[in-house]
Amino acid sequence: MNTLTKTQVSHALSEFATNSKGLRLQPERLLEATSGCLDREALDALAGQSIINPRQFDRRTVIALSQLAAVLERRNVEIDKPLDGKIAITAFFEPSTRTRLSFESAVQRLDGKVLSVPDGQVTGIAKGESLADIGEMFNTYGDVVIMRHPDTQSIDEIRRNLQRPLINAGNGSGHHPTQALTDWYALLKWRPELCFEDCPEDQQVHLGIIGTPGSMRAVKSFLRLALMFTGAVKRITLISEMADPVGLDLTEPIDQSPIPIDITNDARKVLPELDVVYVNSIAFLGDSYRNLDSRYKLDLSCQFKRDAVIMHPLARNSELSESLDDTHHNLYFAQAAGAVFARQALLISVLDRLNRIGGISK
Amino acid sequence: MNTLTKTQVSHALSEFATNSKGLRLQPERLLEATSGCLDREALDALAGQSIINPRQFDRRTVIALSQLAAVLERRNVEIDKPLDGKIAITAFFEPSTRTRLSFESAVQRLDGKVLSVPDGQVTGIAKGESLADIGEMFNTYGDVVIMRHPDTQSIDEIRRNLQRPLINAGNGSGHHPTQALTDWYALLKWRPELCFEDCPEDQQVHLGIIGTPGSMRAVKSFLRLALMFTGAVKRITLISEMADPVGLDLTEPIDQSPIPIDITNDARKVLPELDVVYVNSIAFLGDSYRNLDSRYKLDLSCQFKRDAVIMHPLARNSELSESLDDTHHNLYFAQAAGAVFARQALLISVLDRLNRIGGISK
Amino acid sequence: MNTLTKTQVSHALSEFATNSKGLRLQPERLLEATSGCLDREALDALAGQSIINPRQFDRRTVIALSQLAAVLERRNVEIDKPLDGKIAITAFFEPSTRTRLSFESAVQRLDGKVLSVPDGQVTGIAKGESLADIGEMFNTYGDVVIMRHPDTQSIDEIRRNLQRPLINAGNGSGHHPTQALTDWYALLKWRPELCFEDCPEDQQVHLGIIGTPGSMRAVKSFLRLALMFTGAVKRITLISEMADPVGLDLTEPIDQSPIPIDITNDARKVLPELDVVYVNSIAFLGDSYRNLDSRYKLDLSCQFKRDAVIMHPLARNSELSESLDDTHHNLYFAQAAGAVFARQALLISVLDRLNRIGGISK
Repeated sequence: MNTLTKTQVSHALSEFATNSKGLRLQPERLLEATSGCLDREALDALAGQSIINPRQFDRRTVIALSQLAAVLERRNVEIDKPLDGKIAITAFFEPSTRTRLSFESAVQRLDGKVLSVPDGQVTGIAKGESLADIGEMFNTYGDVVIMRHPDTQSIDEIRRNLQRPLINAGNGSGHHPTQALTDWYALLKWRPELCFEDCPEDQQVHLGIIGTPGSMRAVKSFLRLALMFTGAVKRITLISEMADPVGLDLTEPIDQSPIPIDITNDARKVLPELDVVYVNSIAFLGDSYRNLDSRYKLDLSCQFKRDAVIMHPLARNSELSESLDDTHHNLYFAQAAGAVFARQALLISVLDRLNRIGGISK
Repeated sequence: MNTLTKTQVSHALSEFATNSKGLRLQPERLLEATSGCLDREALDALAGQSIINPRQFDRRTVIALSQLAAVLERRNVEIDKPLDGKIAITAFFEPSTRTRLSFESAVQRLDGKVLSVPDGQVTGIAKGESLADIGEMFNTYGDVVIMRHPDTQSIDEIRRNLQRPLINAGNGSGHHPTQALTDWYALLKWRPELCFEDCPEDQQVHLGIIGTPGSMRAVKSFLRLALMFTGAVKRITLISEMADPVGLDLTEPIDQSPIPIDITNDARKVLPELDVVYVNSIAFLGDSYRNLDSRYKLDLSCQFKRDAVIMHPLARNSELSESLDDTHHNLYFAQAAGAVFARQALLISVLDRLNRIGGISK
Repeated sequence: MNTLTKTQVSHALSEFATNSKGLRLQPERLLEATSGCLDREALDALAGQSIINPRQFDRRTVIALSQLAAVLERRNVEIDKPLDGKIAITAFFEPSTRTRLSFESAVQRLDGKVLSVPDGQVTGIAKGESLADIGEMFNTYGDVVIMRHPDTQSIDEIRRNLQRPLINAGNGSGHHPTQALTDWYALLKWRPELCFEDCPEDQQVHLGIIGTPGSMRAVKSFLRLALMFTGAVKRITLISEMADPVGLDLTEPIDQSPIPIDITNDARKVLPELDVVYVNSIAFLGDSYRNLDSRYKLDLSCQFKRDAVIMHPLARNSELSESLDDTHHNLYFAQAAGAVFARQALLISVLDRLNRIGGISK
C-alpha cells in the first residue's frame, strides 16, 4: 500500500458536477477514513481479469476499488490520460442507456476509446451469428469487452473464443457486478466506518431490500456484496411478497454468512427500523423484463428512520416516488453520480493502467 | 473586442471541403467587413448558458457567433484542441442524422468527445424512465447536453434535474436555435453588409418564407432572428395557405418589430420580388411530422429575382427541386456546409473555451 | 521502394491479440519474403481515391497494402497517431456489426475519429432524404466516408454530390473490395510465395469457391482479385448448384484471365484436390438477403487435402461447422483477425498519411 500525498489529492479539483438533489457525498471522507492509502495489491490482482460475478470480489477488493474511485472523483485524473490507446467495446445486446453511457463516459474521460454496439438489432446476431463468433471478432477489435445480454448463458458463450477481459454489465437474471460496486461505493462514501471490520455498533446498519434478488440481478449482486461486510451489516431484511425471493445463486452464501437474514412481506412494519432501504422493481422473468412493482411504494408518507437512506439502481418506476428526491433520505442520486468513477476504478485496474495515474506509484 | 491578427487568420488554411454545388461563400469576406474583430464580451456571456430559444440571442450575439464561426471555418483550429477533455452528450430522442452528426463532427473536430444517444428506443425511456431522471444521470456523464425531442415540454422536464448547459436541437414544434444560427451565418457570409445597423438600402433584403412558422420550428426560429435584423431586412412576406401561419410564439415579437410583415397565399406573385426565399415543408402537428408540401414547389420554372438566393434547413422533399442545385440561387448547400462551424462557435462559447483558440486572446 | 529498418519493425511489438483457434499467421513472414520493402508508389497512388470496386486494384497494389498491413499488425503504430485530426464517417444504411466495427476500430487505433451511422432507420432517409443530399452533407462532416447500402446503385447516387473519398463496404449484390483485400492479406501471410510472379509450382494453389459470386458480393470481390494472381493460382473451381453462378460482372475478367476455371456441382469430388476452400452462404437476391446454404456443408467429415485451408468472410451459418474451428484447416479466424490491419493500410493510404508512420519515409 502506498501513500497518496495530500498535494496530489488536493490539486486539480474535479469540475464534475455532483447530483442535483438529495444527499451529496464527499469522496475525501472515504479517503481520510482509510488513511489516504491505496491497496495496490488488491487492485493489481484485477489486471487482465474478467469480471462476471460479484463473488469474484472480496471485501478488501470492494474497498480498494472504492478508494480508487474516490481518488478519481476528487481529481481531474483525465490529465493523466490513463486509458490512452485502449479501446473498450460496449456490446449491449440488451438495450440500456444508463449503464452503457456510464461506461462510455468513464472510458472517454480517461482518454480511452469506445466501440459502441447500442443495440443487438444492428449486429450480425440478426443474421444468425453466434455469440462465440462475435467474441472471436472482438479479439482484434478492442482491449476489453463490456457486455449486457438478456440471456444468462451469454457469458459462457462469448467466452468460448473471447481472449480479452469481459466485464458483465448484466446478463439476464444473472449478475450485475459493476452496479453492486457502484452501490457499495456510495455506501462507503456515505459512512466510511463500514470499511472497518470493527465498525462501531452505532454505525452498523440494518439493511432492508425491497425486491426479489432471485430475479433481479442488481439486487442479487448488491446483496452478494452485502454478505461480505460482516462487521458492518448487522441485519438484512428481505421484503417481498414472493414465497422464495432469494433464488439458487444466493442460498449458499446466505447460509454461510454470519449476518442474520429474515424475510417479511410486511414492509410497513420493518421500514422504521431500517438504516438503508434498497429498492428495485424491474425483474427478469423467463426472457423479458417485468415490473414487479407491488404495494410497496416508497413516498413521503413512509415512516423512515430519521437518518435512513434509500438506494435504487435506477431506472425507477412508481415504486420510488419523486417526492422523496428533495429529502435527505435520497441517496440514490448520489449513488448514480458515483457510477462513472466506480467503473473507471475497475477499468483502470483490469486494463493494468494504475501506473498512469500520477501520485499513485508502486 | 480584440484584434485577430491577419497572420493568424491566414495561416493553416482549412482542409475542409465546401459545398459541391451552388453558391460558395467566403468566410473571410465576413471577417473583413467586420474588421477582423471578435466581440469577446458577447461570446463570453454565453459561457455556461443553456441555449433553448433563439430569443436568448440578440443581433450582436448572432454576429459575434458568426464571426467566430468564420474564423473556425477559415483556419484549422483543431490544432488548438479547444474542446479537449470535454464530453458532449447528443441525446436524440427524436431520430435525426443531419443535426446529430453536425454536432458530433463539430465536437470531434475540436478534440472533444461524444456520448451518442442516436435513438430514444435504446434508452431507459422505453422502460418508463422520466426525462428528469435522465437529466440527473447526464450531470456526471458529460459537460454539455444537446437534445432533440418530439415533445415541446421535454426541455422543462429534463432541466428539472440537469445542471449542465443544455442546447436545444429541436423540441417538437418549439424551437431550433442552432439551425437559425446556421441560417444567419450563411446570410451574413453571403452579404456581410447585413451586419450593419445602417445597411445600405440596395443591400437590404426582402425576405420570403414559404411555410408555417407556427408548426415548423426551424422556420419559426429563423424568423425570430430575422426580426432582430431591423436595419437589414426591409420586408418579410410569409407565403402560406393557412389562415394563421404565425402561431402564438411569434405574435408579440412580430407586433413589436419595425419590420413590415405581410402574409399571402399567392407565391407566384410575390416570388419575383424576393431577395431571400426560405422554404421548408416538414411541420410538426400534434405529435408527429407531416409534410406540408403544397402547391408551392420551387424549381427552374419559378421566376426568381436575378440574384435571389434560396435557403432550406434540409432534409428536403419535393418542395425544392434538385434542378435548382446547380444554379446561383442555391444558397442551401452553402448554408448546410456552414452548420458545423456555427455549432462549433456556440459550443466553444458555452463551454468557455475561447481562450484555447490561438490568436484570440482577451 | 524504401527499406523499413529492422529496428523499427522489431520495437514496440503489438499487444493485439490474435485469433483464438485455428492457424495463427505471422505478419513478419510476409515482410521477410518481400524484403521488408514498402511499395510507396503503389500506396501513394491511392491518396484521395474512392475505393468502389476491386477491379481498381492490381496485384501490385494488393501486395503493397498487405505489406503495409503486416507492418501495422506487427507494431504498435498507434503511437504515431497517423490518422490524428481525421474523421471517418461509417454510414451503414444496411446494418452490419463486423464490418462497421472493424473500420471503427481501425480508425480509432490510429487516433482518427468516427462519426457513426449504425442504422439507416435513424437517418433523414426515413424522412425521404436522397442519398445525393446525404453525400452533400458529408462533405463538411468528415474526411472519408465508408458506406454499406443494400442498393447496388447507392454508390452512384451518393457520389453525385460527395467530394470526399468513398470506401464501398458492400453495396447490395455489387462489390466488397475491403473484404477481398482482407482475404488476400490472409492468403499472402499464410503463403508469402503467392506474392511472386514466379511462384514455385508446389506453392501454387488450386482454389475452390463454394457459393455464387454473381449474388454474393464478398465472393465476387475475392474472385476478382484471385484472377489477378496469375502466377500463384493454378486453377479455380466454382462449386455451385446454380446454372450460371458467375454473373455479369465477372464474365469478362474470367474470359481474359489465363487461370483455368471450371464449375461443378459435385463438391465431394473436387474437395480433396483443393488447397484453399472459400465458402459463403449469404446472398443478395432482389432486395434482401437469403441464405443460399445448400447441401455443401463443411465439417469434420469432409475429405480435405492435408494442408488445405478454409476461408469464410463471416458471419457464418450452418455451411461451416464449428467442429472445424480447432483444426489447422481453419484459416477463417486468422482471416478475420487481419481485417482491422488491412483496412488500416487502406485508410492510411487513401487519407495520405503514410508519412506519419515512423520508419516509412519516402
